Amino acid sequence: MTDKPKVLRETDDEARKLARLVLREQRSAAMAVVEPGSDGFPFVSRVLLGFDLDGAPVILASRLATHTQALLTDTRCSLLAGRMGKGDPLAHPRITVQCEGEPVTQTDPRYPLMRARFLRRHPKAQLYIDLPDFLFFHLAPMRASFNAGFGRAYALAGNDLLITSSALEEIATAERLLLDELRSNADAVKHLIADDPEPVTPAWQVTGIDSEGVDLALGDAFRRVVFPRQVENAAELHAMFVKLYR
Amino acid sequence: MTDKPKVLRETDDEARKLARLVLREQRSAAMAVVEPGSDGFPFVSRVLLGFDLDGAPVILASRLATHTQALLTDTRCSLLAGRMGKGDPLAHPRITVQCEGEPVTQTDPRYPLMRARFLRRHPKAQLYIDLPDFLFFHLAPMRASFNAGFGRAYALAGNDLLITSSALEEIATAERLLLDELRSNADAVKHLIADDPEPVTPAWQVTGIDSEGVDLALGDAFRRVVFPRQVENAAELHAMFVKLYR
Repeated sequence: MTDKPKVLRETDDEARKLARLVLREQRSAAMAVVEPGSDGFPFVSRVLLGFDLDGAPVILASRLATHTQALLTDTRCSLLAGRMGKGDPLAHPRITVQCEGEPVTQTDPRYPLMRARFLRRHPKAQLYIDLPDFLFFHLAPMRASFNAGFGRAYALAGNDLLITSSALEEIATAERLLLDELRSNADAVKHLIADDPEPVTPAWQVTGIDSEGVDLALGDAFRRVVFPRQVENAAELHAMFVKLYR
Repeated sequence: MTDKPKVLRETDDEARKLARLVLREQRSAAMAVVEPGSDGFPFVSRVLLGFDLDGAPVILASRLATHTQALLTDTRCSLLAGRMGKGDPLAHPRITVQCEGEPVTQTDPRYPLMRARFLRRHPKAQLYIDLPDFLFFHLAPMRASFNAGFGRAYALAGNDLLITSSALEEIATAERLLLDELRSNADAVKHLIADDPEPVTPAWQVTGIDSEGVDLALGDAFRRVVFPRQVENAAELHAMFVKLYR
């Protein structure tokens, strides 16, 4: 016996993969926190969504915002990210991720990488990212609930959304070098995602590379190409790129 | 001295009106509740949004859903509803409403009206609304936070989102009769919203009438026409319609 509700389906790799994509491809999310001074009232607001190299969601926040004051007091938060489209909003996949938020301020050694990755994804954040009241929160996923549409609900562990690798720093360096290479080779993206069923043009910009895949942006749209297998170091990452776009 | 953060603007009638429209015109919202058995962790999920005659948000929920179990234990919830569009998601207006949820089950005297209004707004909910595990929650707004875009934040009282009238039942009866009349006069809608700057066609369907205005739907889009002044009884409502669409 488990206390898992009967409405949940068995979580398989396909569900995990779709859940990660649905989370990853959103520009913004709804984030719920515990409202400061409310004795436990939930409070939900809109946030821009970025991702750390380990796959954890990252948000940029002003200290003036309610959700920032909340997270600095009670680290628990819940993110809702999902696709929208025509017809019933409940027919489109979305994911709720229960997270623990950790502040990453401008003096934190992790800050420069987080800032660079966030700005590639959200270039307009340049307007305010360096104001003194802004900071990041790294949202470590504890567990998640993925709803792929009516009657298709799955429970996920926090690790299902994370990239487990001992080489995150090495990959971060490799990411910087690869991004430079891609900038001088505009067609590379087209080859990179040639396997994807959706039409792609070289206009897609690479916003991030990690050991599991590549994030791309075109205007307001985001997409992600997942590698056939996770890479474990810079050499494997380079080899994966050579293999994918030659 | 007040403890109001300096980032808040003075709330005026224009802000209240826009806040009500932004809430009212959404198909769905993110609703945060206190996760059951979590010792206070927030939990946010997607809900279809309807409205009661008093202007309070209404959601339809299955007893199998986490948010239903949550609201049956702790009535406190937070709704995020907002416009989306091109560019930065934080540039578009959205509202956070702190609510107390009250269950309205299928045997409740308020249920038939709530069901009829919800189905006019969300016809596809017909597929599951009568399943035995479904119920409504009337979400009474306690207070709200309206963000009209960068640097334009306002604090609202719960009453700013409600329609205060002693004639809600009389208006409900008048709504039913008016809806019948409108069904036999397809052009009425066009006249009704002739003052609106956006182009309108008779294809817009009236989904609800209350003492403050009219809700309309066309495909996935919702809009609302607000009366020049609130009506207080059925006679005034009829007179308002005669005035508006002749």
